[in-house]
Amino acid sequence: MATTTITELVIKDIRFPTSLEKDGSDAMHKNPDYSCPYVILNTDSNLQGHGITFTLGKGNEIVCFAIRLMEKMVVGRKLSDIFGNFGNYWRELTSEDQARWIGPEKGVVHLAVAAIINALWDLWAKMEGKPLWKLLVDMEPEILVSTIDFRYITDALTKEDAIEMLRKMDLGKEQREAEIKATGYPAYITSCGWLGYSDEKITELATAAMSQGYTRFKMKVGADLQDDIRRAKIFRKVIGYDKVWCVDANQKWDVQESIDWMVHLAEYKPLWIEEPTSPDDVLGHAAIAEALKPHGIAVATGEMCQNRVMFKQFFQAKGMDYCQLDSCRLGGVNEILAVILMAAKFGVPVCPHAGGVGLCELVQHLSIFDYIRVSGALENRMTEFADHLHEHFYQPAIVKNGCYQIPSEPGYLVGMKKESMEAYEYPNGKTWQRLFDDGTFSRD
Amino acid sequence: MATTTITELVIKDIRFPTSLEKDGSDAMHKNPDYSCPYVILNTDSNLQGHGITFTLGKGNEIVCFAIRLMEKMVVGRKLSDIFGNFGNYWRELTSEDQARWIGPEKGVVHLAVAAIINALWDLWAKMEGKPLWKLLVDMEPEILVSTIDFRYITDALTKEDAIEMLRKMDLGKEQREAEIKATGYPAYITSCGWLGYSDEKITELATAAMSQGYTRFKMKVGADLQDDIRRAKIFRKVIGYDKVWCVDANQKWDVQESIDWMVHLAEYKPLWIEEPTSPDDVLGHAAIAEALKPHGIAVATGEMCQNRVMFKQFFQAKGMDYCQLDSCRLGGVNEILAVILMAAKFGVPVCPHAGGVGLCELVQHLSIFDYIRVSGALENRMTEFADHLHEHFYQPAIVKNGCYQIPSEPGYLVGMKKESMEAYEYPNGKTWQRLFDDGTFSRD
Repeated sequence: MATTTITELVIKDIRFPTSLEKDGSDAMHKNPDYSCPYVILNTDSNLQGHGITFTLGKGNEIVCFAIRLMEKMVVGRKLSDIFGNFGNYWRELTSEDQARWIGPEKGVVHLAVAAIINALWDLWAKMEGKPLWKLLVDMEPEILVSTIDFRYITDALTKEDAIEMLRKMDLGKEQREAEIKATGYPAYITSCGWLGYSDEKITELATAAMSQGYTRFKMKVGADLQDDIRRAKIFRKVIGYDKVWCVDANQKWDVQESIDWMVHLAEYKPLWIEEPTSPDDVLGHAAIAEALKPHGIAVATGEMCQNRVMFKQFFQAKGMDYCQLDSCRLGGVNEILAVILMAAKFGVPVCPHAGGVGLCELVQHLSIFDYIRVSGALENRMTEFADHLHEHFYQPAIVKNGCYQIPSEPGYLVGMKKESMEAYEYPNGKTWQRLFDDGTFSRD
Repeated sequence: MATTTITELVIKDIRFPTSLEKDGSDAMHKNPDYSCPYVILNTDSNLQGHGITFTLGKGNEIVCFAIRLMEKMVVGRKLSDIFGNFGNYWRELTSEDQARWIGPEKGVVHLAVAAIINALWDLWAKMEGKPLWKLLVDMEPEILVSTIDFRYITDALTKEDAIEMLRKMDLGKEQREAEIKATGYPAYITSCGWLGYSDEKITELATAAMSQGYTRFKMKVGADLQDDIRRAKIFRKVIGYDKVWCVDANQKWDVQESIDWMVHLAEYKPLWIEEPTSPDDVLGHAAIAEALKPHGIAVATGEMCQNRVMFKQFFQAKGMDYCQLDSCRLGGVNEILAVILMAAKFGVPVCPHAGGVGLCELVQHLSIFDYIRVSGALENRMTEFADHLHEHFYQPAIVKNGCYQIPSEPGYLVGMKKESMEAYEYPNGKTWQRLFDDGTFSRD
């Protein structure tokens, strides 16, 4: 490690035409094409780091372009210099003197950071010969917190707090590791309930998921109240009332509208309403959470929560009963660790956002780490799963009996198959060429 | 207007090497090169719209790239379709089904929207033969609010509230217009107090500004407390204690650090501390504001406040005693109108951020409109002025006796001189070529 140097940053614009089947459709995003800016870090050793961030198609090239402009801060660096003070390096990437103006720490530039940082953690885990979750679980608290930039969060969590929390959880961590390896980590399934799916397709998919052992489900809502009520009935008819059922509005409503709409769905007993309104509206979410509490409905959000400063406020204001951090919107693992630790301090369960492409492969590591090393709890915890696009990865996330199986191979594990990259690279990959040629898609 | 159509969107990457003189230097941005993605909208009539957004140099090309990807939503559109329901069009630009994932409504994509929207308002004002402020002042309330997207803010301000507020201010608007034309709009000057300037340069510039009639000043702080104290003494010695003096930390501190640091500067009687901490930290600013109130120091922020949803919360939480909205970070005039109206409703004075390049030219219109049509007040109001780069505009903002003079020519008035564009287009403009050739700057 001491001398290993990053020699090349390769970027690929990978897109999948998921809009054709309405996979991923919701009240705000009717036709997503799940996509990822894909980063490969080559080194002068045999190590190679793979990382992604995630988008819905258009704009994927903007994020790729932003990653390219960060190349100078990556190529030529020694891994030992980066990992030796990863928190400092993270700040260097996120707070470049001139470039921070166009963020800071949010949107395009932060997604770009996520792809690079995720690739670096893949490198680190491979170097240590461990899956990412195990790298994190085995880390000394002082090393682990050295990767975090505590700027702007010390009023909620200091480095000393974090070390103390991790130290306390030393007790029983081997047992929790053995246990989670045996049982797997609880998953819930989203891919039965996309908004663009017909009633028949929902019935069919939910029935199939039940037979596969799923006990936790999510359905998209927010386009039309009568539709939502009809679909809620269908869902509950298939899964019964002893299973967990959540709904997700993907930011469709204003504050009062969220409350009014959800009161109508209360009789179907959703565990949570996810993203009722703007992802930026901490106080709005807090108002909704307070109003819906008497109706037994919690508020979940986080997949578009831009950075640790926003999560801090969601925790402080009680605007988030469930924390759905995203592995590719936050600035990679370093910032995610800060959020997981803050969530534990405020007693908020972390139920990461996944689905898309590659997100399930990533977040499983975060949840396993959270259980073994931070929260020590499974109650009210579950990680999203959507059954799309896993076939493109060498080591796909595996869910059995409604639980993520614990990965054992070294890395952060988003290595994409060579043939998939060739087919889905945009716009010149073979599949895209075919879709343009036959008129299914038009070129931008 | 009925048939005028946008035929072309021209984008220029314009940058000025301001880092050479440390103009604009602060605690977080030591070497900014003031830059703008510059948009020209050509039409099939003789009308041409000019708009900008603003950056500190690196990343200017990312914003230009994002603007280019929005071209399809702009070129080919009829102005009557856009202005006939400008609020809807604004939502179309900011909430494109796939692209909103990489924002939404923040960072790179929102800066790109700002440049386009600003150019559209320039077109509209020119079409009506009025400066932007006058176009807004003369607009019927119903038309004015039709440009605003009220999504996510109806818990603070509805369309009906906004119309009522504007109606109420009908009374006396002619008088206020006449009055402000005679006196000008109060300005404060920032360009005497950049962090990278020597004590001698500060003394010299502040003395000169006093002799030009300025009575309101701002100084950068946050790098070193002893330096700040020394510079505060210099400033107060030159300007005395009867003048307004503000300080600006540009997000340097955490919450408690902000409070502790400012207590040490309290004896120099700053009116406000600007951007003490993360621009995303609504609750942090509220905590700082509460703690500094007994010390007579207010909290100002807003230049990096990403959208109306964040401003709404700053107002709700009392995290912003002065609202420093930015003409190029918010999504152009449409969203700014929402913020100005919310500020009035919550009783928060609007003191727009300016400086940079072109920002003074833009914000003067917003302040004049605010006075005549919304707040009706000058108390505690002043608009930033920094004396850099005005020579590049055909109709530069003019400050006399510490007041912005009221512009009278049609448009939003950021038309940049042809020769300036040729010299400063990056990287091929003549000035940049010279700076690369003589080794002053290296090419990226």
